[in-house]
Amino acid sequence: MTLAPILDAVDTGLEASLERLFDLLRIPSISTDPAFDAACVQAADWLVAELNDIGFDATRRDTPGKPMVVGHHPGDGPHLLVYGHYDVQPVDPLDLWHRDPFDPAIDQTDKGPVIRARGASDDKGQLMTFVEAFRAFKAVQGALPCQITILFEGEEESGSPSIIPFLTENRDELKADLCLVCDTGLFDPQTPAITTMLRGMQAAEFTVIGPDKDLHSGMYGGPAMNPIRVISSLIASMHDADGRVTIPYFYDGVDPVPNAVKADWDSLDFDGAAFLGEVGLSEPAGERGFTVLEQIWARPTAEVNGVWGGYTGAGTKTVLPSEASAKVTFRLVGRQDPDAIADNFKQFLEDQLPADYALKFTSGHGAQATIMPTDRPEFAAARAALSEEWPNPAVFIGGGGSIPIVGHFRDILDVDSILIGYGLDDDNIHSPNEKYNVTSFHRGIRSWVRVLGALGDA
Amino acid sequence: MTLAPILDAVDTGLEASLERLFDLLRIPSISTDPAFDAACVQAADWLVAELNDIGFDATRRDTPGKPMVVGHHPGDGPHLLVYGHYDVQPVDPLDLWHRDPFDPAIDQTDKGPVIRARGASDDKGQLMTFVEAFRAFKAVQGALPCQITILFEGEEESGSPSIIPFLTENRDELKADLCLVCDTGLFDPQTPAITTMLRGMQAAEFTVIGPDKDLHSGMYGGPAMNPIRVISSLIASMHDADGRVTIPYFYDGVDPVPNAVKADWDSLDFDGAAFLGEVGLSEPAGERGFTVLEQIWARPTAEVNGVWGGYTGAGTKTVLPSEASAKVTFRLVGRQDPDAIADNFKQFLEDQLPADYALKFTSGHGAQATIMPTDRPEFAAARAALSEEWPNPAVFIGGGGSIPIVGHFRDILDVDSILIGYGLDDDNIHSPNEKYNVTSFHRGIRSWVRVLGALGDA
Repeated sequence: MTLAPILDAVDTGLEASLERLFDLLRIPSISTDPAFDAACVQAADWLVAELNDIGFDATRRDTPGKPMVVGHHPGDGPHLLVYGHYDVQPVDPLDLWHRDPFDPAIDQTDKGPVIRARGASDDKGQLMTFVEAFRAFKAVQGALPCQITILFEGEEESGSPSIIPFLTENRDELKADLCLVCDTGLFDPQTPAITTMLRGMQAAEFTVIGPDKDLHSGMYGGPAMNPIRVISSLIASMHDADGRVTIPYFYDGVDPVPNAVKADWDSLDFDGAAFLGEVGLSEPAGERGFTVLEQIWARPTAEVNGVWGGYTGAGTKTVLPSEASAKVTFRLVGRQDPDAIADNFKQFLEDQLPADYALKFTSGHGAQATIMPTDRPEFAAARAALSEEWPNPAVFIGGGGSIPIVGHFRDILDVDSILIGYGLDDDNIHSPNEKYNVTSFHRGIRSWVRVLGALGDA
Repeated sequence: MTLAPILDAVDTGLEASLERLFDLLRIPSISTDPAFDAACVQAADWLVAELNDIGFDATRRDTPGKPMVVGHHPGDGPHLLVYGHYDVQPVDPLDLWHRDPFDPAIDQTDKGPVIRARGASDDKGQLMTFVEAFRAFKAVQGALPCQITILFEGEEESGSPSIIPFLTENRDELKADLCLVCDTGLFDPQTPAITTMLRGMQAAEFTVIGPDKDLHSGMYGGPAMNPIRVISSLIASMHDADGRVTIPYFYDGVDPVPNAVKADWDSLDFDGAAFLGEVGLSEPAGERGFTVLEQIWARPTAEVNGVWGGYTGAGTKTVLPSEASAKVTFRLVGRQDPDAIADNFKQFLEDQLPADYALKFTSGHGAQATIMPTDRPEFAAARAALSEEWPNPAVFIGGGGSIPIVGHFRDILDVDSILIGYGLDDDNIHSPNEKYNVTSFHRGIRSWVRVLGALGDA
């Protein structure tokens, strides 16, 4: 398949593509705030209309939450499920934005032109790279190289409460050979990436409860065991001096990074010191013996996200509180079992409780790590296609965060995912002044043209 | 001196004494809330009028804060300074009170009748034991057995901001041979006590600052050192497994309890297990090898009164905060130096900070422990006088808290204090439904009659 005329159509149509993206960015589809419910429906309707305009059979599918957008288009090649989300993060603190977050514009920066708006990168700009790639194929060839099922959701930023029931109820309709997800990043502005490993997660919260009321330190200070001392000891005991997590059985199911993958990572121009330096740190705090990249992509963590207890206002209050609490999230890798991690953590805490103390413990629904089947031929095909588009060859990378949808596609639809995206670390997603490089958008559309072409030929 | 007619006058006048106390209790003199500024002035004026009525030369002395009440009365015996405070704690949570906190009444309880109102015990009821004892002397004898200078303040519950300047500016007027303070408690309902040791205090607050902004645990979890882990390790390191504080030089100036005092304490019917059992604890957490009573009265402590960092709202937030904070108070004994404790604590924290971390540290104005000169003959005289009034002989006890005024009298006026009071642990001071046993009030007045008589004879 010759892609040149389609790529040319992407180039000549870029201005119009940007205008359409701007239309979508103007809709304040914040899914976490009920005040923007109507905007979420409006964004879904806008996408349905766009897709139908291109020739998809697209509909808005209402759920108890925000609507899904589902679209179908026939094609000769493999059947691909395409995923993105049209909802965006809240915009506060609004006063830190340099312009209205829902009045998109091109800003000229020293790194080139960028699209500035809430959702520009996460995920409207990325989602529209799919739509504009389809449009270019249709405009030039009147057809798509693969059969496409689109699923755009509107609840990704609020925990996707409707996704599991929706996938379950519409399993047959959404089933495909492979899924393409556009919600990740480039490795660097010159280097495209396929994210092949994602850490899983387990969350827990616990409270240690000692005296049955707050005590006065003048009366009980000394003989009464202070819950802040107890919780501090517990938290301090979660890591040893080498940065290893000390919870029993924690590393069960943690596999070494395969040599081939490790070689790929070692070839990357990743500067761990610069990465830490960006946030004012220099000394890696993860497990000794692993690079910063391995610590993020391939090693599990136990992080305390919040701690509180006693008096936290102004001045002094000589109180011994009756309890203290902490929130913890574990990032998981390999075959680590989230439920077992929660159980073992609870046991670990209980085993160390001092006399008279009780533990209140809750854990959320966890997610296992995701490891993509990179031996499927589509991974090599996509990698080669991306390498043709960008200055540097594409790389397989890991991801420190979690993208739960990938696990749901795997578990509910029995579909593997290829994660390709064009975001950059400095896109300010979830923060004021979010942006998406025009290059990301432009080369992103062209990248999908190449990937769709490659997969259609495969 | 025969005290019998004066004690009789106390007994026959008890109803009228209670009525006067109720008048004072009806004035909502909450010093921490500016809404009650006028009530504080009203309480001061009420006391001035009462004292002048008895024959004192009393005046309201305005300060930048709440007014002081100063009164003078001549007498042949030694010159005594008499201290109490007319301000009270706030009353919230108001819905936990069984009656209006400023509408005093006698409640019949299974432990006998009690005066129920805010300030009944702390400190209006106690302060009025002085006034009513003076009244009885004057009514029967037309004279007092000692020269008296009264100082009643109205800022004790809000940190006494005016006391140091006031004592300094009026040093000559307030100077006396000895001070009597009525703001402490009985050892138990049958056993009067003179508090001869008070722990000092030093307060500090610190923040550990790591990354220069909050981080996402999916991105930095692992290689970035988490400030909650850092502060937890610091707090956990403050005590060893035997409950000893590990800060260098912390125990400098901590003297063993003299054998005579220890023997006095050992003779007390103090049940450490019951004391801890009242708040749901059983295992003493202070230094191993010391009794619960010693841990409270004679050993220094390092207590974390508050800790906070990261996300503390509902649900999960996968954040690594940039900082975490804690508030600490040290209870000090013997010759421990508050400034040195603060300095050594700061150094202790700094020495353990991990790479890239900064410490923000503030410490308040500390107070040394107070050890009364119990070899002064007035202590033996007062002890004997109290022993005559109550079912059990009086005891010398320690106090776990601090009463800074005693240190100020010592430092500024060069006056020692004898601390005698009639409060009980179940008086609910600073809490809803504060009470003062009618027995405390009645025997309290009679106790001062006996103590004044004894000191006048000495």
